[in-house]
Amino acid sequence: MSTSDASLARRMGKSDRILVRHDAPFNAGPPPELATASFLTPNDLFFVRNHGDVPEIDPHTFHLTIEGRVQKPFRISLEELRRLPKVTLAATLQCAGNRRQEMMAARPIPGELGWGTEAISTAEWSGVPLKEVLAVAGPMPEGRHVEMHGLDETERHGHRFTFGGSIPIEKALRAEVLLAYEMNGRPLLPAHGAPLRAVVPGWIGARSVKWLTRIELREEPSENYFQAKAYRLFPPHVDQDNVVWETGLMLGEQCLSSIISSPGDGEALAPGLQTVRGWAYAGERSVARVDVSLDGGRSWIVADLEPELSRWAWRRWEARIDLPAGPGKITCRAWDSAAQTQPEHPEQVWNFKGYMNNSWHRVRVNAG
Amino acid sequence: MSTSDASLARRMGKSDRILVRHDAPFNAGPPPELATASFLTPNDLFFVRNHGDVPEIDPHTFHLTIEGRVQKPFRISLEELRRLPKVTLAATLQCAGNRRQEMMAARPIPGELGWGTEAISTAEWSGVPLKEVLAVAGPMPEGRHVEMHGLDETERHGHRFTFGGSIPIEKALRAEVLLAYEMNGRPLLPAHGAPLRAVVPGWIGARSVKWLTRIELREEPSENYFQAKAYRLFPPHVDQDNVVWETGLMLGEQCLSSIISSPGDGEALAPGLQTVRGWAYAGERSVARVDVSLDGGRSWIVADLEPELSRWAWRRWEARIDLPAGPGKITCRAWDSAAQTQPEHPEQVWNFKGYMNNSWHRVRVNAG
Repeated sequence: MSTSDASLARRMGKSDRILVRHDAPFNAGPPPELATASFLTPNDLFFVRNHGDVPEIDPHTFHLTIEGRVQKPFRISLEELRRLPKVTLAATLQCAGNRRQEMMAARPIPGELGWGTEAISTAEWSGVPLKEVLAVAGPMPEGRHVEMHGLDETERHGHRFTFGGSIPIEKALRAEVLLAYEMNGRPLLPAHGAPLRAVVPGWIGARSVKWLTRIELREEPSENYFQAKAYRLFPPHVDQDNVVWETGLMLGEQCLSSIISSPGDGEALAPGLQTVRGWAYAGERSVARVDVSLDGGRSWIVADLEPELSRWAWRRWEARIDLPAGPGKITCRAWDSAAQTQPEHPEQVWNFKGYMNNSWHRVRVNAG
Repeated sequence: MSTSDASLARRMGKSDRILVRHDAPFNAGPPPELATASFLTPNDLFFVRNHGDVPEIDPHTFHLTIEGRVQKPFRISLEELRRLPKVTLAATLQCAGNRRQEMMAARPIPGELGWGTEAISTAEWSGVPLKEVLAVAGPMPEGRHVEMHGLDETERHGHRFTFGGSIPIEKALRAEVLLAYEMNGRPLLPAHGAPLRAVVPGWIGARSVKWLTRIELREEPSENYFQAKAYRLFPPHVDQDNVVWETGLMLGEQCLSSIISSPGDGEALAPGLQTVRGWAYAGERSVARVDVSLDGGRSWIVADLEPELSRWAWRRWEARIDLPAGPGKITCRAWDSAAQTQPEHPEQVWNFKGYMNNSWHRVRVNAG
């Protein structure tokens, strides 16, 4: 990391070892060798995906408003939220653009961040279940989507607006969706949405709205740019010039993915017995199995999976391999509880926004 | 169909046009050209997957028993069940072995049925939600799995036993899980479980236990052969000789799949504009998109999807293609609501029991 990156990282409350992908807005994540060093990602290494500047918010005057299609709209202060029963759960968050770099290698994706495998992390989040706050407001039957508005401003195509997005009421009423004010037992860092953010486990990171200030129940999904246009999946022949935004698959629930975090890509190591490590993550489903291949997928070794420490988090895995001398490649793929596995190549999932690359992961190694 | 197949089909209440894969036990399904002729599969074409003989049951003396880890075990007659509020919903059922034939072409799978694409159908089921019956019995906290016992006898490895399987209590308490006594507005046929069967939408067909006579709440999943051993997914290097049954992925929720039902494999048709049709099915998820390719997956055409007529059913699709003269191949793949797509080749999902083949589907055509 350059000196300026390091000082920026420190200003953001981040470790000097974090990998900075973009400095304004600040986007960074843990380098591969640290990604799965522990089940919970330390706060100073947890990935950051921002679309604008980090807003400065006075927690003493901060209020959350709940309105729209509800019986009883109301405002609540941070202090009042903290007096409600506190729930803590470990959940993985992942940016929909994680692993975009591999897609870019297949075909260029201009104007998007070239994430490696680092736009994913796991923390223990503490806060109030969203359903408790919704219960007080009393959703009307037509309040089918819960829109969340942040305080961070972004500019796109000449317009300035705040970040936002919605989730269906069925998901919003589930116990695991939190309004969080703590992360790994510490107050949220400004870069992670202080003083309050949503945590929507199993869904793309963009729905875990940071600097959350307003919740609005609506009949239809959010019309915010980051839901109505961005964070949609298009077929491979669609690009910036011919896109019809409304036709894209509106991303929500995360699909199955897995990566090798160690050895790193291009690493030199000794031939013979080696341990390969990584994570697998299945969104709303469970990870059922991880396979590792030394011959590009002709044969597979079954990895040892860490127990499911949280239904909403990744599972780390490791496999012992006998690495032949010379240059080689290690490949991994996972299976979820519905017996679904990953596609083989990034080309098969390529889309012009570079989302949801969940193809087999490969690292090149050199043993000798 | 041979004459004996036709008379067997008629005895089973089936159309002469059904494709019989095995006569004892009776296993059959709709031929490809009829598979998606209508959203609901007519009763006389609905696929049948039996493991033993069709038991003869007197509906007047029939009782369902609910017992195990419940506060109040009880028995209920068919007449009493019919007096409870009746729910009707359209749901697709699919055998976990559907499309096994394509896997067998990649590598032999001895001793299993060579299903083509026909082990899937959709009906409107009517009956009582399982959760209503469980509510009367009062599940104990340790009653985490709901085991269902059928009356059909099977023999495996020298043992005779009845068919059964369990689902987790969370699924059992969902509104869509039915104890069904009607199918498409008609009483169940004997081959479909008369007088009573379970319908577990989104899960493998084996959990929709037929000739259902006993429900038992348990701490652990069913130990019935068809759950403890069969209907598990193993890595590609595992076979009958080295299998450790307990280590396999216990199948439950269905993964994403799609097929081309028309044209049929090997069909001769005219070059030029043609319509391709098929189904896509995503289990507990929704189908988001279906793509069709004429060049083996280098480029894709987006198909038109039928509206989601039921959250628990397949979606039919069609695409207009411009078919070049000569021999060729048409390929399809689907995407689900979590942006998950299918693997490319049956080899990638091959397992020695031949379950859950959800690779891209291909038909060879000859235009000229």
